[in-house]
Amino acid sequence: MADKKRAIVLLSGGIDSATTLALARQQGFAVYALSFDYDQRHRIELKAAGRLVESLGANEHRVIKVDKSLLKSSALTDDIAVPKSRSANQMSQQIPPTYVPARNTIFLAYALAWAEVIGAHDIFIGVNAIDYSGYPDCRPEFIRAFEQMANLATKAGVEGARLTIHAPLIKLTKAEIISKGNSLGLDFSLTHSCYDPTPDGRACSQCDSCLLRLKGFADAGLTDPVKYV
Amino acid sequence: MADKKRAIVLLSGGIDSATTLALARQQGFAVYALSFDYDQRHRIELKAAGRLVESLGANEHRVIKVDKSLLKSSALTDDIAVPKSRSANQMSQQIPPTYVPARNTIFLAYALAWAEVIGAHDIFIGVNAIDYSGYPDCRPEFIRAFEQMANLATKAGVEGARLTIHAPLIKLTKAEIISKGNSLGLDFSLTHSCYDPTPDGRACSQCDSCLLRLKGFADAGLTDPVKYV
Repeated sequence: MADKKRAIVLLSGGIDSATTLALARQQGFAVYALSFDYDQRHRIELKAAGRLVESLGANEHRVIKVDKSLLKSSALTDDIAVPKSRSANQMSQQIPPTYVPARNTIFLAYALAWAEVIGAHDIFIGVNAIDYSGYPDCRPEFIRAFEQMANLATKAGVEGARLTIHAPLIKLTKAEIISKGNSLGLDFSLTHSCYDPTPDGRACSQCDSCLLRLKGFADAGLTDPVKYV
Repeated sequence: MADKKRAIVLLSGGIDSATTLALARQQGFAVYALSFDYDQRHRIELKAAGRLVESLGANEHRVIKVDKSLLKSSALTDDIAVPKSRSANQMSQQIPPTYVPARNTIFLAYALAWAEVIGAHDIFIGVNAIDYSGYPDCRPEFIRAFEQMANLATKAGVEGARLTIHAPLIKLTKAEIISKGNSLGLDFSLTHSCYDPTPDGRACSQCDSCLLRLKGFADAGLTDPVKYV
């Protein structure tokens, strides 16, 4: 039997990356899950990533330590308040303080390195341009530009292999993502989304990420199993 | 007096990045030098980077620790022999074992993050496509593609600022780079190039990097002041 094609899947531990992992598995890829520890305020998401790998299956899971000293000035890594109770309109009007400079570029760069080492030509990332809270590095044009660059950056590209960045959720609403995850049998109780959880791991229910998640479940007609304060 | 424009300069400690730093200073930029510690075999180059910053001047110098667990399978990071005594023809015919997967993509991604944090719109990298030993991420088309991606990845790009990746040495031969560094007053005794130095820091004289350096000095009609075995 031929070996399965290998794919790197960026896995934060939230709904989007969990659904992306489930999709990559459904498409028959051998999954190499990649998570990042950048001293994020919601570092508890790394535990969620571990639970998801156990539940959904992966050939390997690596957690890479990212030197966060360059990533200051974000509410996710610094002593800046996480905004609470913003309307969808407020969220969409500007790049929010939870934006981490060049984060997806750094994450995808590491994914590219690992892909080259293990001979994978596919990288999955669960970015989403619809309910994306205004992050520039979640847009389709960013993903396309990264893919183009990646094909020039690597040995595989030079030798004629084609590297693909898959962003299967990019045009879905949060409700559509949740419905898809549900149809793939994803156990949402294993995921973590909140930017500002309590020490015992309950979600704050008021940050942008909680608000988008709660609205997504409501719109999908499903109940969110995670605990809120 | 208006503040100087800020630029990130990637600084390995070799001739190319040192000359690039000198060029950025000559062009009037306030320099933020960025080096990387990835447990490279020639980690001694980080000391050279520190000496160069002192000699040439920079507003700040950061050394970022890069998790090297994904960067295996290179002679620079792993227990693979550094090739010795290869001819120019051998060097140019294939991607060498000293190639580190996606290295420049990761380095530029960190530079992009720092640029965004300090409000710099210029990143300098001393890559060189002529005597480049076959690294795919040293080609002009890679630099252009990274720049295009970077302008879509960041807040600055979204807000209309234009980020530029400068690769001022990309079309120069090693001899031309050395002549340029020399004309800018660069003290080459501060630089380090060897991939496989002795514990006391002398260059091996036989790796690709030493061979290119020695040939460059000879072609430029100058004497290399560093110590060889």
